[in-house]
Amino acid sequence: MAEPLEFYFDFSSPYAYLASEQIDALAARYGRQVKWRPILLGVVFKATGSAPLTEIPLKGDYSRRDFDRSARYLGLPFRFPSKFPLPTQAAARAYYWLHQQDCAQARAFAHAVFRALFVHDRDISDTAVVTELAVQAGADPAALAAAIQSEEMKARLRQECDTAIARGVFGAPFIFIDGEPFWGADRLPQIERWLAHGAF
Amino acid sequence: MAEPLEFYFDFSSPYAYLASEQIDALAARYGRQVKWRPILLGVVFKATGSAPLTEIPLKGDYSRRDFDRSARYLGLPFRFPSKFPLPTQAAARAYYWLHQQDCAQARAFAHAVFRALFVHDRDISDTAVVTELAVQAGADPAALAAAIQSEEMKARLRQECDTAIARGVFGAPFIFIDGEPFWGADRLPQIERWLAHGAF
Repeated sequence: MAEPLEFYFDFSSPYAYLASEQIDALAARYGRQVKWRPILLGVVFKATGSAPLTEIPLKGDYSRRDFDRSARYLGLPFRFPSKFPLPTQAAARAYYWLHQQDCAQARAFAHAVFRALFVHDRDISDTAVVTELAVQAGADPAALAAAIQSEEMKARLRQECDTAIARGVFGAPFIFIDGEPFWGADRLPQIERWLAHGAF
Repeated sequence: MAEPLEFYFDFSSPYAYLASEQIDALAARYGRQVKWRPILLGVVFKATGSAPLTEIPLKGDYSRRDFDRSARYLGLPFRFPSKFPLPTQAAARAYYWLHQQDCAQARAFAHAVFRALFVHDRDISDTAVVTELAVQAGADPAALAAAIQSEEMKARLRQECDTAIARGVFGAPFIFIDGEPFWGADRLPQIERWLAHGAF
């Protein structure tokens, strides 16, 4: 069995949302699984001296237009959130806690978080919203709320961010296949070539 | 006749080189011409507070790998230049001067400059190299050398950079179709959709 792909993302990245709707099916066509790894781009940007795309002069205006157009190109629903950027710690910690119990539940939750933000314009920085989505995925609300505030999940998320930076992750989505790094939803065609024919 | 595409680039942009090898044929398949518009990314980056990709932490290492892999993906020859980044004023001014005399000559020269840098590892910041390439494209060496230093061509290049920034150009390649902006060689699939089916 070939190694799983590793999919690093922040729940607030529009391009990561676009990748999240394609990556599992793409990998499955070539007999591969995908490990989902939410991280915090704020922590990454502090390490690299970068900033959210939408806050960069000229690039910001373009990126807003490109998010919309790229979603239409891919046939995916998309609405730019009224609150953006926004913190995603609660969602990421909830993801790792759910993942310890049940991988499928965690995956359903992750899709729900992305769609809540980028389709239904919900505030995923709100712990109540995160809890609601986790409960819909099958989580116990009290246990989930405690997990979001637990030192264990805080440490886990910090460690995932540190590992990502150590591996060279500087943006999202960031995907590794067999150790090879690919940055951006627009690298999915190259990823497909790699999956189909191996290293090129 | 549909409007021509506008292709903004700096001769030192690896991704612009990758686009330059595809853009004319792509446009021609849909009955369109392409206006080539060399600019100076240094001037653009001063306006936007950005920096060359290869000088950004983590992103720099990744970009070196991505240039190579993207060229292999597209089946194009590519060698990262030993001198990089480098100034491209002379090449850009020579382009605009040639373009006043003969569009086809200017196009042949532009391809030659890109390939000199990214295939044959030549120093295109050297006026002697620029002159040699222009002469191969059919230019008179003395007139070309004078044009590179002329106030007229200096002003023309400044004006093209100012126009580009005013239109929202913040990187290269940057392509307009019917006023719609596309940034990056990886937007060529979206550009093809636009050419084939119109606005989406």
